[in-house]
Amino acid sequence: MINRLCIIGVGLIGGSLSRALRQAGQVKTVIGCSRRQQHLQRALELGVIDEYTTSVSEAVRGADMIVICVPLGAMADIFSEIDENIETEAVITDVGSAKGSVVAAANARLVKSKHQFVPGHPIAGTEKNGVDASFAELFQGRRVILTPLEDNSPDAVERVTSMWQNTGAEVQSMSLQHHDEVLAATSHLPHVLAFGLVDTLANLNDSHEIFQYAAGGFRDFSRIASSDPVMWRDICLENKDAILEIMDKYLADMELLREAIVDGNGSKLERIFRRAKQARDSYIQQQSDYKDQEN
Amino acid sequence: MINRLCIIGVGLIGGSLSRALRQAGQVKTVIGCSRRQQHLQRALELGVIDEYTTSVSEAVRGADMIVICVPLGAMADIFSEIDENIETEAVITDVGSAKGSVVAAANARLVKSKHQFVPGHPIAGTEKNGVDASFAELFQGRRVILTPLEDNSPDAVERVTSMWQNTGAEVQSMSLQHHDEVLAATSHLPHVLAFGLVDTLANLNDSHEIFQYAAGGFRDFSRIASSDPVMWRDICLENKDAILEIMDKYLADMELLREAIVDGNGSKLERIFRRAKQARDSYIQQQSDYKDQEN
Repeated sequence: MINRLCIIGVGLIGGSLSRALRQAGQVKTVIGCSRRQQHLQRALELGVIDEYTTSVSEAVRGADMIVICVPLGAMADIFSEIDENIETEAVITDVGSAKGSVVAAANARLVKSKHQFVPGHPIAGTEKNGVDASFAELFQGRRVILTPLEDNSPDAVERVTSMWQNTGAEVQSMSLQHHDEVLAATSHLPHVLAFGLVDTLANLNDSHEIFQYAAGGFRDFSRIASSDPVMWRDICLENKDAILEIMDKYLADMELLREAIVDGNGSKLERIFRRAKQARDSYIQQQSDYKDQEN
Repeated sequence: MINRLCIIGVGLIGGSLSRALRQAGQVKTVIGCSRRQQHLQRALELGVIDEYTTSVSEAVRGADMIVICVPLGAMADIFSEIDENIETEAVITDVGSAKGSVVAAANARLVKSKHQFVPGHPIAGTEKNGVDASFAELFQGRRVILTPLEDNSPDAVERVTSMWQNTGAEVQSMSLQHHDEVLAATSHLPHVLAFGLVDTLANLNDSHEIFQYAAGGFRDFSRIASSDPVMWRDICLENKDAILEIMDKYLADMELLREAIVDGNGSKLERIFRRAKQARDSYIQQQSDYKDQEN
């Protein structure tokens, strides 16, 4: 049970976490913190938080669990403000999509409280953002990855694990480097590609007409291009190396695919498409097996 | 009202067309034709067709409407078989995703009956294929593009238009070149990119583990990579020029995006992502306005 949960950045993820823990009866009081009072007021109206402040140092006072849900680029300053004011028994975690840069910021900014910080990442979200889009079921059956630090006590890791389990998520640990590579491949690169394609089409002369003829395939493919630009800018800046590594592999493969089209090499195209379909179909199978296990 | 509808290739599209027209009471008899008797038998069992034959020349005899629903690469031979046996009052149409190559094949293979062929393309589908995936509502609120030939009589165009309208679709005409450019941008390139990404990830050493951590964004982005490899091989072969033109624009834009990541150019990344989000959000708005108009 969390006594006083401090959520810094009450948007889709922070709001959904609060809703899920309240619904599970696993938190007494939730305090929200954000730079924008208007967002906090809205979260209060929606019943997502009990109280709020725009001051990080005020927000963390008395909290036993602090969850940072802001874009990656905003984390360093928040660490500095937390460090001065955190309770000795409190645990800090975050929800950032890239862990290397968060841990570097924590190393630089958390002096007293570094051992209290357990980096985390719920693999969940939608293309929507803001507290209005939050819902209690967001993490159900989803994975949350923790990348614990050497300094973390088993108790701190256990408390973060248990918080996420109480939202219906499955919690796993891995090294932060591995996390950043896996996420670059399955999330960061697809977002970059989708943003890129929509932008290419939007820049065509007849883009307005072209979009009229887009069907369901395009709608799904491009859904992630409706995601928050600031969040994704920060991810590209902060997980640069892993993203570039997989992006270069992808672009090299695309060059081969392009050549197969230029050459009219049907058997090569069919081979690539067949292999991809197989991989995608078995991924979907695996997902539904995983869901079945959960239920 | 269609008296005798001949569907060559009774899969997702052909099967759904038959179901929709039956449901609307706009067809008396449906004859299915395919190379594989097993597929036809299944279509008969599902009540999608009334009778079948594996012979094209037999299938078209007595039919007043012939719809070709086979992969692009299989069309030319079918045209040859139709030409010899078609009734003088019959109309032929197709559902191919690229129209330039279909019309070239028609020009080469339809001698007597070229003026009876009205090229068409319903902008609808799912990643599934086969008659088991067919359903009557597939075309409701969707667009069907016709690219009529100079030789077509107004009556022939009208009969194909009215068939599609009876499925709940909105029918529009455009030049075949424009069709092929628009579809390359909104459908063909996204499919190539999705197949390519899934294949790149599937070829990584830890691909099995990587797919485990893929979330909803990846599932939607990659949905179209579960599409039929043969159909998409043919589209890449037959709409090569238009696909390469938009693909090269895209790859050049990706190169700029890549440079922005390499340079850590946050403002440039944010600008691109913001522009893409805007375009995608307004496309979705436009789609929902269009649906509202329909209802």
